[in-house]
Amino acid sequence: MGVLGASGYAGRELCALILRHPHLSLAFATANDQRGATVRLGGREVTFVAPDDARLDDVELVFSALPHGASKASVERVQAAGARAVDLSHDLRPGNGCEGIAYGMTEWNREQLRGAPVVANPGCYPTSILMALKPLFDQGLVAPGAAIIANSASGVTGAGNSPKRELLFGEVTEDYRAYGIGNTHRHLNEMRATLGAWNADADLVFTPHLLPIARGILSTITVPLTAPLDDALAPWKDAYRGEPFIEISHDTPTLRDVAHRNVVRISAVPLANTRQPMLLVTSAIDNLMKGAAGQAVQNANLMLGLDETAGLPA
Amino acid sequence: MGVLGASGYAGRELCALILRHPHLSLAFATANDQRGATVRLGGREVTFVAPDDARLDDVELVFSALPHGASKASVERVQAAGARAVDLSHDLRPGNGCEGIAYGMTEWNREQLRGAPVVANPGCYPTSILMALKPLFDQGLVAPGAAIIANSASGVTGAGNSPKRELLFGEVTEDYRAYGIGNTHRHLNEMRATLGAWNADADLVFTPHLLPIARGILSTITVPLTAPLDDALAPWKDAYRGEPFIEISHDTPTLRDVAHRNVVRISAVPLANTRQPMLLVTSAIDNLMKGAAGQAVQNANLMLGLDETAGLPA
Amino acid sequence: MGVLGASGYAGRELCALILRHPHLSLAFATANDQRGATVRLGGREVTFVAPDDARLDDVELVFSALPHGASKASVERVQAAGARAVDLSHDLRPGNGCEGIAYGMTEWNREQLRGAPVVANPGCYPTSILMALKPLFDQGLVAPGAAIIANSASGVTGAGNSPKRELLFGEVTEDYRAYGIGNTHRHLNEMRATLGAWNADADLVFTPHLLPIARGILSTITVPLTAPLDDALAPWKDAYRGEPFIEISHDTPTLRDVAHRNVVRISAVPLANTRQPMLLVTSAIDNLMKGAAGQAVQNANLMLGLDETAGLPA
Amino acid sequence: MGVLGASGYAGRELCALILRHPHLSLAFATANDQRGATVRLGGREVTFVAPDDARLDDVELVFSALPHGASKASVERVQAAGARAVDLSHDLRPGNGCEGIAYGMTEWNREQLRGAPVVANPGCYPTSILMALKPLFDQGLVAPGAAIIANSASGVTGAGNSPKRELLFGEVTEDYRAYGIGNTHRHLNEMRATLGAWNADADLVFTPHLLPIARGILSTITVPLTAPLDDALAPWKDAYRGEPFIEISHDTPTLRDVAHRNVVRISAVPLANTRQPMLLVTSAIDNLMKGAAGQAVQNANLMLGLDETAGLPA
Repeated sequence: MGVLGASGYAGRELCALILRHPHLSLAFATANDQRGATVRLGGREVTFVAPDDARLDDVELVFSALPHGASKASVERVQAAGARAVDLSHDLRPGNGCEGIAYGMTEWNREQLRGAPVVANPGCYPTSILMALKPLFDQGLVAPGAAIIANSASGVTGAGNSPKRELLFGEVTEDYRAYGIGNTHRHLNEMRATLGAWNADADLVFTPHLLPIARGILSTITVPLTAPLDDALAPWKDAYRGEPFIEISHDTPTLRDVAHRNVVRISAVPLANTRQPMLLVTSAIDNLMKGAAGQAVQNANLMLGLDETAGLPA
Repeated sequence: MGVLGASGYAGRELCALILRHPHLSLAFATANDQRGATVRLGGREVTFVAPDDARLDDVELVFSALPHGASKASVERVQAAGARAVDLSHDLRPGNGCEGIAYGMTEWNREQLRGAPVVANPGCYPTSILMALKPLFDQGLVAPGAAIIANSASGVTGAGNSPKRELLFGEVTEDYRAYGIGNTHRHLNEMRATLGAWNADADLVFTPHLLPIARGILSTITVPLTAPLDDALAPWKDAYRGEPFIEISHDTPTLRDVAHRNVVRISAVPLANTRQPMLLVTSAIDNLMKGAAGQAVQNANLMLGLDETAGLPA
Repeated sequence: MGVLGASGYAGRELCALILRHPHLSLAFATANDQRGATVRLGGREVTFVAPDDARLDDVELVFSALPHGASKASVERVQAAGARAVDLSHDLRPGNGCEGIAYGMTEWNREQLRGAPVVANPGCYPTSILMALKPLFDQGLVAPGAAIIANSASGVTGAGNSPKRELLFGEVTEDYRAYGIGNTHRHLNEMRATLGAWNADADLVFTPHLLPIARGILSTITVPLTAPLDDALAPWKDAYRGEPFIEISHDTPTLRDVAHRNVVRISAVPLANTRQPMLLVTSAIDNLMKGAAGQAVQNANLMLGLDETAGLPA
Repeated sequence: MGVLGASGYAGRELCALILRHPHLSLAFATANDQRGATVRLGGREVTFVAPDDARLDDVELVFSALPHGASKASVERVQAAGARAVDLSHDLRPGNGCEGIAYGMTEWNREQLRGAPVVANPGCYPTSILMALKPLFDQGLVAPGAAIIANSASGVTGAGNSPKRELLFGEVTEDYRAYGIGNTHRHLNEMRATLGAWNADADLVFTPHLLPIARGILSTITVPLTAPLDDALAPWKDAYRGEPFIEISHDTPTLRDVAHRNVVRISAVPLANTRQPMLLVTSAIDNLMKGAAGQAVQNANLMLGLDETAGLPA
């Protein structure tokens, strides 16, 4: 395996997972600013090489964790070199002008993913929100014309490790704020395109927030229903039975429950005192695992014909 | 002034504000478990006395920061002793079975508060949410039958300083979770009663969350509107013109903006890509200041005929 | 394996390590206050049983993570039931009146540990400090009569998860303090007894501090030397060659370097501008791993004739 | 007053103190990268102007919080314009090649400071350590030839708010490390020069550490004594009697004790079990207050003939 853009948080997590994986090995890990740096990942020392020193033709599959905008061209180079690719940027995801690419929400798309030359790994917020919403739409439970309100809160690793003043410890500690307000966050393209593919008759309102923690995304979602549910968890129990990386929980999930694990943990309760039946759905992921590197390895396992759970902490 | 229940976080903040206040002095500060303890508050040493050692008849006004349930009877003793009271518990707030008590949302009720023998100081979440919602209802801007979705996140001081395992540093750090889910938090009584008093035709969905920070509440609220607004901030500019403790902000407020200040900071933007016009309102307070001790002193200033802003950091 | 006192932080870490261990299984995990609680540890659900429900005679080895003072009697019951024991309390450690018990600083005592019926697992601070100091004394490098100054800083899990006000998130966040000042911390018995066993001609001054983080201990130690060293790292390179769980580092170790790993990471530099030659030694461990549960499993691996590194993240 | 380099943490704190000061007003606040930015400081909106727009000849006194190296030339321009200066950089401090400049350890140097055209404001670590050590040397209590071991831990605001990867929240949270190891930190020049001015016969060993908190410095210092002390606090009680900004404490000071206050809080206990009498001294400051902006304003108050405590939170 090779990793392009390995020095960011998702890239480092990818290297760590590959190095601990029973069937994969790491041929190269590239970085630009941090080329030449040696860091400890997955119990080993890894030295980042310059992008030009990556032997794309020597590996079967390349993970691209390059910045948004820069990834698409790299994936083309990977393909030209004869390798397959899992792209963690948003360049190739639904809603971003590159239709026809396999979308790596693993649990939904296994057949397509197995043979795909390129997989667009989903965004962290979309994984957290869409994994929770899909069973409700598939089972026709969402009130037509509904406004679904999704509030998410993410740890700072979601913003990357490029030095920015607003991400300094002295700025983030003891603070909390919304951003991308007004339904403008770029992950909305991916989510709206996916809702469109489902023929979902609903509006999505999405507001992300920045948490003073390192990792994790919690989404709190209100969904108007066609009718009350006898068992609020039934839609997920039915849809995700036997899934190794999806947990249905009676208790509200917390970020601690999912830290360093490749899972989506979902819970739901009916909302009291509303005239229309509504559900409160909560969904927790580790943004660097099921929200990025973990799901990327899960997809690679499928693409390579390996056990889908190999090398992934559940 | 006297403070009952002074050893909790709100009680300590009250003592500090009184000790730094230009016109008030602190006659006693009671505590139960921590009686006899001396702590530094407001630049002075304060020794907590046993509740029985409080000379209620020696003071003009008593703040009660006793636990919910225990406060009501104490307020009656305060009144029997001839003093006035500001009660920070939820015992006397709207929706809790004690109608007729002045409700200390200062900006709405000045006339009633000036002469009130007892004031029910609002809850922290209701201050954050209702201060933001009132102009929209007063001006008839909320779509009839709307579901208003309020997601709030609070620092841990909102949960008090009684030792509980789930509030230990080792449990809270690097975690985040929703609680009181399903529209069941006890502050809903207060908020629903207030919406009822406004004859509001709307459902409120409220989900609080626990943040790994010490202080602050940020509320993120979606409100369906009757029609789009030309200026999303106009409702608050109109309603709160000249208010010393309400800030209308073009930028989304953060908790750092309001820390240690007796203000509500409010912003709003229209939501893109929804078929019904909707507004995203964000509201930030320091839960111990405008959400508790600060607003209590603001109310006491009014009751005592002082400058309403005396002793309060804006 | 059985775990007594499994609900504390060290006990939970022990359960997690046993459940992920390739050769061990968990027969029971006891708790007192938390009996009956089910928690997720090591990828599994674990239900704590009452102490009386532990089948001591069904297991080969029992880990006791009971509180200091309560552990000694339990270890006697374990032995009476025919099982071997690793005790994580300080009851049986050197300097606490129970001589003759094998001391579980694994790297020093392998022969004795293999056959030991009972092992006293070292304290977290002593592991951090004594692992760093031993090569200097063994090689005769410490100036006779020296005062060795050890300043350590520990995450809050070292203080356990019993609810105490001073350990609440609201108290610990944004704070830092020394405690056990004046050379009075109870781990000094263990460290002085060990120095005595080495015939060390030195005074130890030890000051622990409480960090606003969950886990990790960093010790910063100044050591007067008999003479300057050509290679400041040579004493450890010589003493710990080939040790799988001891890392000698050119860079100063940070707590991030050792989190969730069963290692001691040590560095050293000469001190400039002192008339006597002195070394600054820094030593980092995860207090719950090499400082508690990890070293306990390392010792159990030896006792049971298993690969010493089995089940331990390096 | 004017502030040069106002956009850093110390510069912002200076602006806030000046804006809340009863006798000072802020004529300009300059910034380079952040010129034109408007921020809320001290209850007001402040807009940073470009350095060239500062009217140095319009003000009586200028605070320079410019980066080390850049400050010296600016102070010369301030003097040429006829204003006095307080320089917060290390350019003019003792040991940095600029002898003859008044050294702003206020409590030691009041006579010289009153008339000084330029004052070198002390470093944060030197304030914490030297304020604690001076009474011991002045009173001849330190053992001749002693090695004084000072371990300090500082919040991240001490490292400034320039964007650097190692200061990102995701890097600092849940971590702790020593830096400037081997007695090489640049504040040692200032401390050694001061010890030299006292004719101190002692070596100083200084190791700073980086804490995952915003503000505060705690120094833990071991000092060999000529003889045991009857009252470990007596040296400071004698030396600092009546000082408004120095607190002698029976309890070990914590950073919470001094946050946002212009004080040094000092405690001391004898060390048990050492053959040579030794004292453990702990000293806490807010690095942005008594360690920077607060002491700068204290010095300016003196220079301008104002009450030394004006505008400073004790």
